[in-house]
Amino acid sequence: MAEFDLVVRRARCATAADVFDADIGIRDGVIVALGSALAAGKEEIDAAGRWVLPGGIDGHCHLDQPTSDGSVMADDFLTGTRSAACGGTTTIFPFACQQKGQSLRAAVDDYHQRAEGKACIDYAFHLIVTDATPEVLANELPALIREGYTSFKIYMTYDDLKLSDREIIDVLAVAREYGAMVMVHAENADCIAWLTERLLAHGHTAPRYHAEARPMLVEREATHRAIAYAELVDVPILIVHVSGREAIEQLSWAHSHGLRIYAETCPQYLFLTADDLGINDGDHHGAKCICSPPPRDKANQQVVWDGLENGAFQIFSSDHAPFTFDGPQGKFAAGSEASFERIPNGIPGLETRLALLFSHGVETGRLTMQQFVALTATNVARMYGLYPRKGSIAVGADADLVIWETGLDRRIRNSDLHHGVDYTPYEGIPVTAWPALTLSRGEVVWRDGDYVGSAGRGEFLHCALPEPARPKPRPSVGDAW
Amino acid sequence: MAEFDLVVRRARCATAADVFDADIGIRDGVIVALGSALAAGKEEIDAAGRWVLPGGIDGHCHLDQPTSDGSVMADDFLTGTRSAACGGTTTIFPFACQQKGQSLRAAVDDYHQRAEGKACIDYAFHLIVTDATPEVLANELPALIREGYTSFKIYMTYDDLKLSDREIIDVLAVAREYGAMVMVHAENADCIAWLTERLLAHGHTAPRYHAEARPMLVEREATHRAIAYAELVDVPILIVHVSGREAIEQLSWAHSHGLRIYAETCPQYLFLTADDLGINDGDHHGAKCICSPPPRDKANQQVVWDGLENGAFQIFSSDHAPFTFDGPQGKFAAGSEASFERIPNGIPGLETRLALLFSHGVETGRLTMQQFVALTATNVARMYGLYPRKGSIAVGADADLVIWETGLDRRIRNSDLHHGVDYTPYEGIPVTAWPALTLSRGEVVWRDGDYVGSAGRGEFLHCALPEPARPKPRPSVGDAW
Amino acid sequence: MAEFDLVVRRARCATAADVFDADIGIRDGVIVALGSALAAGKEEIDAAGRWVLPGGIDGHCHLDQPTSDGSVMADDFLTGTRSAACGGTTTIFPFACQQKGQSLRAAVDDYHQRAEGKACIDYAFHLIVTDATPEVLANELPALIREGYTSFKIYMTYDDLKLSDREIIDVLAVAREYGAMVMVHAENADCIAWLTERLLAHGHTAPRYHAEARPMLVEREATHRAIAYAELVDVPILIVHVSGREAIEQLSWAHSHGLRIYAETCPQYLFLTADDLGINDGDHHGAKCICSPPPRDKANQQVVWDGLENGAFQIFSSDHAPFTFDGPQGKFAAGSEASFERIPNGIPGLETRLALLFSHGVETGRLTMQQFVALTATNVARMYGLYPRKGSIAVGADADLVIWETGLDRRIRNSDLHHGVDYTPYEGIPVTAWPALTLSRGEVVWRDGDYVGSAGRGEFLHCALPEPARPKPRPSVGDAW
Amino acid sequence: MAEFDLVVRRARCATAADVFDADIGIRDGVIVALGSALAAGKEEIDAAGRWVLPGGIDGHCHLDQPTSDGSVMADDFLTGTRSAACGGTTTIFPFACQQKGQSLRAAVDDYHQRAEGKACIDYAFHLIVTDATPEVLANELPALIREGYTSFKIYMTYDDLKLSDREIIDVLAVAREYGAMVMVHAENADCIAWLTERLLAHGHTAPRYHAEARPMLVEREATHRAIAYAELVDVPILIVHVSGREAIEQLSWAHSHGLRIYAETCPQYLFLTADDLGINDGDHHGAKCICSPPPRDKANQQVVWDGLENGAFQIFSSDHAPFTFDGPQGKFAAGSEASFERIPNGIPGLETRLALLFSHGVETGRLTMQQFVALTATNVARMYGLYPRKGSIAVGADADLVIWETGLDRRIRNSDLHHGVDYTPYEGIPVTAWPALTLSRGEVVWRDGDYVGSAGRGEFLHCALPEPARPKPRPSVGDAW
Repeated sequence: MAEFDLVVRRARCATAADVFDADIGIRDGVIVALGSALAAGKEEIDAAGRWVLPGGIDGHCHLDQPTSDGSVMADDFLTGTRSAACGGTTTIFPFACQQKGQSLRAAVDDYHQRAEGKACIDYAFHLIVTDATPEVLANELPALIREGYTSFKIYMTYDDLKLSDREIIDVLAVAREYGAMVMVHAENADCIAWLTERLLAHGHTAPRYHAEARPMLVEREATHRAIAYAELVDVPILIVHVSGREAIEQLSWAHSHGLRIYAETCPQYLFLTADDLGINDGDHHGAKCICSPPPRDKANQQVVWDGLENGAFQIFSSDHAPFTFDGPQGKFAAGSEASFERIPNGIPGLETRLALLFSHGVETGRLTMQQFVALTATNVARMYGLYPRKGSIAVGADADLVIWETGLDRRIRNSDLHHGVDYTPYEGIPVTAWPALTLSRGEVVWRDGDYVGSAGRGEFLHCALPEPARPKPRPSVGDAW
Repeated sequence: MAEFDLVVRRARCATAADVFDADIGIRDGVIVALGSALAAGKEEIDAAGRWVLPGGIDGHCHLDQPTSDGSVMADDFLTGTRSAACGGTTTIFPFACQQKGQSLRAAVDDYHQRAEGKACIDYAFHLIVTDATPEVLANELPALIREGYTSFKIYMTYDDLKLSDREIIDVLAVAREYGAMVMVHAENADCIAWLTERLLAHGHTAPRYHAEARPMLVEREATHRAIAYAELVDVPILIVHVSGREAIEQLSWAHSHGLRIYAETCPQYLFLTADDLGINDGDHHGAKCICSPPPRDKANQQVVWDGLENGAFQIFSSDHAPFTFDGPQGKFAAGSEASFERIPNGIPGLETRLALLFSHGVETGRLTMQQFVALTATNVARMYGLYPRKGSIAVGADADLVIWETGLDRRIRNSDLHHGVDYTPYEGIPVTAWPALTLSRGEVVWRDGDYVGSAGRGEFLHCALPEPARPKPRPSVGDAW
Repeated sequence: MAEFDLVVRRARCATAADVFDADIGIRDGVIVALGSALAAGKEEIDAAGRWVLPGGIDGHCHLDQPTSDGSVMADDFLTGTRSAACGGTTTIFPFACQQKGQSLRAAVDDYHQRAEGKACIDYAFHLIVTDATPEVLANELPALIREGYTSFKIYMTYDDLKLSDREIIDVLAVAREYGAMVMVHAENADCIAWLTERLLAHGHTAPRYHAEARPMLVEREATHRAIAYAELVDVPILIVHVSGREAIEQLSWAHSHGLRIYAETCPQYLFLTADDLGINDGDHHGAKCICSPPPRDKANQQVVWDGLENGAFQIFSSDHAPFTFDGPQGKFAAGSEASFERIPNGIPGLETRLALLFSHGVETGRLTMQQFVALTATNVARMYGLYPRKGSIAVGADADLVIWETGLDRRIRNSDLHHGVDYTPYEGIPVTAWPALTLSRGEVVWRDGDYVGSAGRGEFLHCALPEPARPKPRPSVGDAW
Repeated sequence: MAEFDLVVRRARCATAADVFDADIGIRDGVIVALGSALAAGKEEIDAAGRWVLPGGIDGHCHLDQPTSDGSVMADDFLTGTRSAACGGTTTIFPFACQQKGQSLRAAVDDYHQRAEGKACIDYAFHLIVTDATPEVLANELPALIREGYTSFKIYMTYDDLKLSDREIIDVLAVAREYGAMVMVHAENADCIAWLTERLLAHGHTAPRYHAEARPMLVEREATHRAIAYAELVDVPILIVHVSGREAIEQLSWAHSHGLRIYAETCPQYLFLTADDLGINDGDHHGAKCICSPPPRDKANQQVVWDGLENGAFQIFSSDHAPFTFDGPQGKFAAGSEASFERIPNGIPGLETRLALLFSHGVETGRLTMQQFVALTATNVARMYGLYPRKGSIAVGADADLVIWETGLDRRIRNSDLHHGVDYTPYEGIPVTAWPALTLSRGEVVWRDGDYVGSAGRGEFLHCALPEPARPKPRPSVGDAW
């Protein structure tokens, strides 16, 4: 009788720390053995010395998220998880978003219904807190944290999402008390509003003015402020989608002062620039690249690469926010008929995230394979409470694995992707690597260019408390022994 | 027939990335399997859920190193490796030190003779280049790198060791060409000499003036200069024994400018202060804590702790440099009869390094267990070319493992240590953890308080090229696809 | 017939740039000649080689300012200007403070009535904008600027004073359009409120908790934010009462990025520390030193001294805010019967400002005499639009002059002062210099320890546009000639 | 009988602090009165409301300086001072340069002979110390300081000029003891040598490689090192010809740590870029702009402008170093026949310095008139011990005055200049202002486009101790009163 349900043979494995050659023995969807010559499995897959990495965890994506204006996202849990799986991602963190006036619990319940029966890979929820009422702070958040919703995002901008400064502090205090992780969208709402009014008053409505309305100082200021509040409350936080030097300098300041400020960046800050929003006013295709913060310039791209290498960033996410370009609700209509501030913010990226970083980060020598694994999987699991079940290749972990094909001469084409969006901002960018096979809990969901997953097989994951979400002990050392 | 020579059961394993529970299967001194219920071994050790970590690698220690003045170190490869093993260290990097005028090859040959038949754990050599002659640069270094001596240390101070600035640049250029790693002792020789002369002229000879002769600016300046030369040559370097804020700020500056500058710190900068060199002139016991750079103050201790946490440091070493306090060549004689600048620089620390960091770093919550493993083992192996044979718990790696006992209520006492030095600077400091058992390539060398290793079983390790010792690729990204 | 009304003979003059020996010829209250042997005056004063400096300009003081809670300040224009004159100050800038809901114009009219007939030295008004209505922004401010109210202060804290962030931006935009100078009280209101609530909830009501409720981060954050808004709008601003390192670092950052951010500090940040607010809970005398931001510690004092020397600060003001210690509205009652947050914020300092800085800044060698003049007079006049009428010893300037007596062995005693407050926070601090004689427009108002001014002789000064309140030209240099 | 020898009527005067309208009364070459309607002078000049500023002081220029290779400079004291006077400069500081092996005294004596009978304006000497022998340190320097040579320059690069690091420290210690000011040429010699060797080895000999051999890091490192040595010795220093951001950041760091580090910049860092050294290898005219440090780029120009405004720089000098382009010793010959490292370093600039800064700094609104005066005259006098005799418009000061003509539409043409060099690097740059008349001690030397000075009328000036050349008092403030 076979000892294993499945053995992946001759795998060139990488974790966030290690690289080793081993067979991987899987039983009941879990890795139960790593060894140099494991016994037989009921099934066997020969990795033939190729890289076998932990399945990607996308710590930041938006799927079928209800909006205040009733617009509908182009991906739901079906197309979104399918697209993720085809790109080598085996766990996602979309957002259960509270509408102002709504209870958080209701938002969570609603979001579970939206996910029901659709996901082909596992998923957990971040919460978005938009209405920090006393009830939310005192009861709903603590209860939800205990139930496994241990990370929540807050916004410093967007009228329908943003918290007041006092609410931010109050939410951080709850996070500190219960050990949750707070993710911060750091842009200054008043600066954006003031600039937007001025731009519109001058008739500047084209997509490219989106970037002018959100210059680097908008992000720098909010980042500094968020860090100050984290320092005040003495709690770690995580700044999401950091776009360039001035924000990274704030992170660096915080680190040098002993603060636990974590950070995420995304492919758009490595592969796009503000020029991609259009060079002139007639360029409506720029709407395809509208996201917030906006992409910056080449110099900032380099600084973000450096930050990935030197530890400024813990997490590399897609911030997948799927809106079509064409169609009545699409970006083109919003941009051509109205103005940049009406164009939905966000770009798709679930499927392309890993291949872009692998190709341009690892294969160029900028990042080690271990850094790639840490940024795309292990750290995400640890930061958000899924570790050690998810995020690594280790005995006891779920068999979420990706076998990579390398040495490719391909370009990203939206026609090859599996999401519900009619474009990719990365169209034409070359990649040298792509997942050959994706395993989710030991089951193949993507193999040799074919999606073979099934809707509804993905499980909801209750998160434990995030690892770093604790105040920092600063005992006096070396006093009197 | 048993599948394994040895199985360590029920191990709570940690790597630099992961924590997992597994049995560890060992054959021929190598880890061949990790699994949830491995087959039987000829021998079995029950770890009973205790932490099992990779054996420590001490990337910086001095044993039986010839000196220009003929003085003899208190530890040779016998006592040094014994002491290391008893403290949970399974690989060491002492230094083959070129004397000025000597060929590097001769220094290496001599050092092999000193090690011959003595070591009970494995060892590799760093080279110390003190005479960067054209022959050394053009022939000896390249040849030795090819033979597995891939890291070398250079000094910016000490008359008998230091290189001129031009020699530093030339050595860095060799490192760049061949992919070696250069470790830099960064202190400004001229500042030290000037201050020392002035202190002596005022009759300030007591041990505590050692710290006054080497204030923080001495280290900051040399660190800045070393970084500038690395930037000039476009090569990674590693700054050893960094002691405090001003030097760390230089590292941080370098990182924010995309430079690959790595760094090491040591227990003395976490557990000692300048006060330990004596509060008044009559305090000759201060000689016991004389090392360079000197320990700073409490505020700098905190900054070094922060640096360990936030990634400023890759490596935590002992900088074990063993000199006795008593005896004709001892620190007391040198200090009481002569003056501080005659006291041998260096303190012992091979055996206490791991327990101090485990107790005060991990068990206090400052560092994760993964960070501990990275700093004390994995990163050392990767930085100096021993990875993946050494430095982790992974299939294919040497079975260098330590089972830790925790929850202790002990204090460090020199009478419990196994080195050849008659004191420890850490006398009386409490530790809550200590190795219960040390395995070197599958063989027990320390168990339950008894040293059970044997001289000569340790092997010399030829190093591959260090992982990070490559210039940084900075290709333009996102240009024209 | 005498050529001059008054000649001050043998003056050792200092301006913000120069030191020279000259006779000073005065006619109609104006300096009309400086020369080595001027003709006779109707009156003559022999300065006998003593320092003769421009009369001090206090750019930041509060007199008879209406408050939202109806409490009355301990100094009005009579006692306030008398106190100022006795301390060598000849021009003051109190604040016409808009109450929320009130028109700015009404606040200005009311304040003129309060000043009417009382001042013995000249005065101008800063405006305090607390309600940035469209009417205020579009009409009142522009009109008032044109009439000579060219500087206004805004608050980022205090419920009855603070502007929203959007209001701050709007006020800055008005300042940019019309060339006015905006002074910013930079403390984060939400942080203070949150900390205060927590302190009170723990029963921490003693004066010393005032400092705990406003830690450095509260000021640093608001300073960063104010700078970001100035950068957004592209307008110079002036941060008032900067207290320590972290705020100064923000100034330095701004300067290194080419921003025109000016700053003021005050005696309390050189001579007081948080300990002066009380060491234990029973110390109600600490209420005497409650001001915002609170005094910090010795290390921050040194940094503020350094900032005075190296150009971080342009202005040294008193921030005189007079509240008695005893009495039913006094600080003692508020502090002992209620809690720290009810104690009026502010300390007296109009009379002691100059002597403190002269004694501890100039006579110790920290500052040059020219820096003293610049910080206490010339820069104030230039920053706030009174230059060249006020602020220097130059042909055409008002004869506002102070002859200084030096070499004193005195201590500050409240019994020697002329304000309406029953204490001074500087009681007992030694001073080596004090004004021997104060001239206001050529008339003696203080001589040899006697106040000889008269109420009502002081004139209201309409201010021109401040010198630096212009956006910075950044033309491209060296392009194609 | 006229009270004055000369009265300049209706002058719009500016000092480093003030702007005022006055008549200037001059007797015996000294300003004896400033007044609104002075009595008659034997001679009168009507300034007609034009700017009258203190004559420029050029704190850094090279004239007839002996060189180790026997080459001769294109300007001696005759042409150099003539050129200076025509550009509005009335005092210069050339360098008495010690040759290695020579006594300092001999260098000074020789230099006096070179100056004898030639200068048409006043001059003082800086010393260049190239050989810090015990005799120089113990005897010559102290004696020369006492005699009025109170500032000296040291080099960190150039084989024939540079001091060792220990010599630098020793010279700083002498400066501290006697109160002299040390000027530092901060470039790292070893980096330059290494880069130069590599460039030449690749056949890169064109002028433009001069800039590649001296990148910013070369200057940054040396600046950091010089600051560290000043911190070690606790003495102010002055970094000359600072060229860009990375060096300015070092200054800023020093200021924020309370160090007295002063700095100079020059026109070449505002008006030239590295591109002016040639865009391609065949461009030998680039030799005209070879100086050290080399000009950087536009971004660095802006940072230098910012530094002039925000107080990073105290002094704006020409660093006039006159070598012809044509001729057997000229830059063309050296560059075309040999290689960049043989081209004499230095560019002419004595005559154009003031007009360039006036036109592009003051008239654009970047700098105030007072800043212009401070940077070009007052600070120079104070830094180098000529104050208050030189550097301002004040009673008792020498009548060194310049009446400026503004509103010009001119371009700089070498054919209009009066130096001995056959080119100007600023050819074609527009200027809107130029001196209409230059007075040296009350005598006209330049009027309406005509040089009317006479060789030998200029006097040698013995310097007092520089104002800032004292260690910084850091007494504890606010301890126990």
